[in-house]
Amino acid sequence: MFRDQIQTSAKRKQSNIVLALDLTGLSPERLLAESLNLVKRLSSLICAVKVNRHLTLPLGLRGGVEKIVQQAHRFDLPAIMDCKLNDIGSTNRVIAENFFQIGFDALTVSPHTGWEKGLEPVFTLAREMGKGIITLVYMSHPGAEEVFGLKTQDPETGEMQPAYKLFAKWSRRWKADGAVVGATRPKIISEVDGLLGKEVPIYSPGVGFQGGMVEEAMKSGTRYLIVGRTIFTAKEPEAVAEQIRGTVLKVAPQLF
Amino acid sequence: MFRDQIQTSAKRKQSNIVLALDLTGLSPERLLAESLNLVKRLSSLICAVKVNRHLTLPLGLRGGVEKIVQQAHRFDLPAIMDCKLNDIGSTNRVIAENFFQIGFDALTVSPHTGWEKGLEPVFTLAREMGKGIITLVYMSHPGAEEVFGLKTQDPETGEMQPAYKLFAKWSRRWKADGAVVGATRPKIISEVDGLLGKEVPIYSPGVGFQGGMVEEAMKSGTRYLIVGRTIFTAKEPEAVAEQIRGTVLKVAPQLF
Repeated sequence: MFRDQIQTSAKRKQSNIVLALDLTGLSPERLLAESLNLVKRLSSLICAVKVNRHLTLPLGLRGGVEKIVQQAHRFDLPAIMDCKLNDIGSTNRVIAENFFQIGFDALTVSPHTGWEKGLEPVFTLAREMGKGIITLVYMSHPGAEEVFGLKTQDPETGEMQPAYKLFAKWSRRWKADGAVVGATRPKIISEVDGLLGKEVPIYSPGVGFQGGMVEEAMKSGTRYLIVGRTIFTAKEPEAVAEQIRGTVLKVAPQLF
Repeated sequence: MFRDQIQTSAKRKQSNIVLALDLTGLSPERLLAESLNLVKRLSSLICAVKVNRHLTLPLGLRGGVEKIVQQAHRFDLPAIMDCKLNDIGSTNRVIAENFFQIGFDALTVSPHTGWEKGLEPVFTLAREMGKGIITLVYMSHPGAEEVFGLKTQDPETGEMQPAYKLFAKWSRRWKADGAVVGATRPKIISEVDGLLGKEVPIYSPGVGFQGGMVEEAMKSGTRYLIVGRTIFTAKEPEAVAEQIRGTVLKVAPQLF
C-alpha cells in the first residue's frame, strides 16, 4: 500500500522531501524536459514526486505527464497527483482512473466533497488498485483560514470546533494514506497529529517560499515535507534539498 | 461580461440548458468526435456547453478540448470549464490561464478555497480577461449535505447557519457570475435565490439522471439547467432537450 511505499522510499533515500514540480512560464517542451531533469538531478535527495495542473494542463497525460511518472519510477520514487478531487463521485472516479492509469501511485482529495457518492467511490477505486489517497486537512495559503478554520458543528457529537478537526477525524475514519496540513501553521499540525494518531502521516507544503519552517513543522508532527519552488528556483537546487534533508535528519532522526 | 453573454444566448436560443459533455467509456478519438457532434446536433436547443475532466484528461487542451470550445463558439454558444478550482491562489491562476487561453468563457470555483491568495487571484484574472466565474454553493450529490449543509458560524456576524448560506453571501460579495445549487434540492435553491438577489443567477445540475425535477427547480429560482447524461444517453437527445426546453418555457416564460 502507498503508505508503506513512500515510507520505504523515505528510509532508502534518507529524505522526507516530496518534490512539487510546480514549474511555470515555460513552453510545453521545456516544461517536460526541465521536469524530467529535476527528477533525475534530485532523485537521491527526495522520497517522492508531486505533480499539479502546472504540468497536466499544458502537457496532457498520455505521452506527457506519463513520462514524468515513468521518470519518477525509474528512480524508485512514487508519484503523487495533486488534483484535490472535489467533484461528484462518478466524475471523481473518472478523474482518478485517468491518473492511476498513467501510473500515479496516489492522489489528493478534498474532504469538502463529503463521503456518499463523493469521495467514497475514489477510496474504493484506490483500494481496488492498490493506490493511495491523501486528504486536505488544512491548506497552506492565507485564505485557508477562512474555510478550514471555520467554526463548525460536528453533526455526530454536536460539538463546536474548527472544520479542520472534523476533516482530521474523517481522514482517520476513511483510512486515508496521508493528510495535508500547511507547514505555516505548526500549532495546527500538532493538533491534527494528535487527532490522526500514528495511522495517518501528515504532509506539509509551504516550507520556505511560503514562509513555513522545516524545524518547526517537523517538531510539530509533520512526516513529509512538500517542497517545490524553494528548491527548483534556487541557483543550486541540490544544495537546498540537501540542506532541508540535513535539518530533518537532525530534528527527527527517528523517522529514518 | 459572461453573465450578459449567456443571457443573450439563452434568449436567442429560447433555452436555458447548459449541455454537460460528461461522456465516458470512449477512446479519445471517439470522445472528441462525439462531443463535436453533440454540440452541433443540439446547438439550437441549448444556451451553453460545459466541459469537465471527462474530456480534458483524455483529450488534453491544445488541439483537444480546444476544438470543442471552438465548436461551441461556431454555434454562438459560450463554453464553461467545470474545474471546481480549489487550490492555492498561484496554482489557481495557472489553471485558469490555461483554460481561458484556449477560449473558455467561464469556469467554476469552490468557495472552500477562501478568498485571500485563494480565489481572489482568479476573480482578478477573470475581470482582466472579461471571463466569468461560477461558484459552488450546494452540489448535487448526496454527500454534499455532509459539507455544504454543515452548521457553521459566520465569522462576521457570529450567527450559526448552514455553510451554503455563507457561500451564497460570499458569492454575492465576490460578484460571481453564477452560483451552482443542485436541482435535487428545491428548498435550498429558493433560500439561496433569496440571498443572491437578482445579481447572481443560479445554475442547477442534477436534473433527470440524478433525480432532480425541471419544474420544481425552475419554480424555486434556478436560472440555468445543467444537463448531461439525461440528454446524451437518450435514444433521441434532441427530443429530450426539446422536452426540457418546452417545460422551462411554460414554467418560466419571463426569463426569455
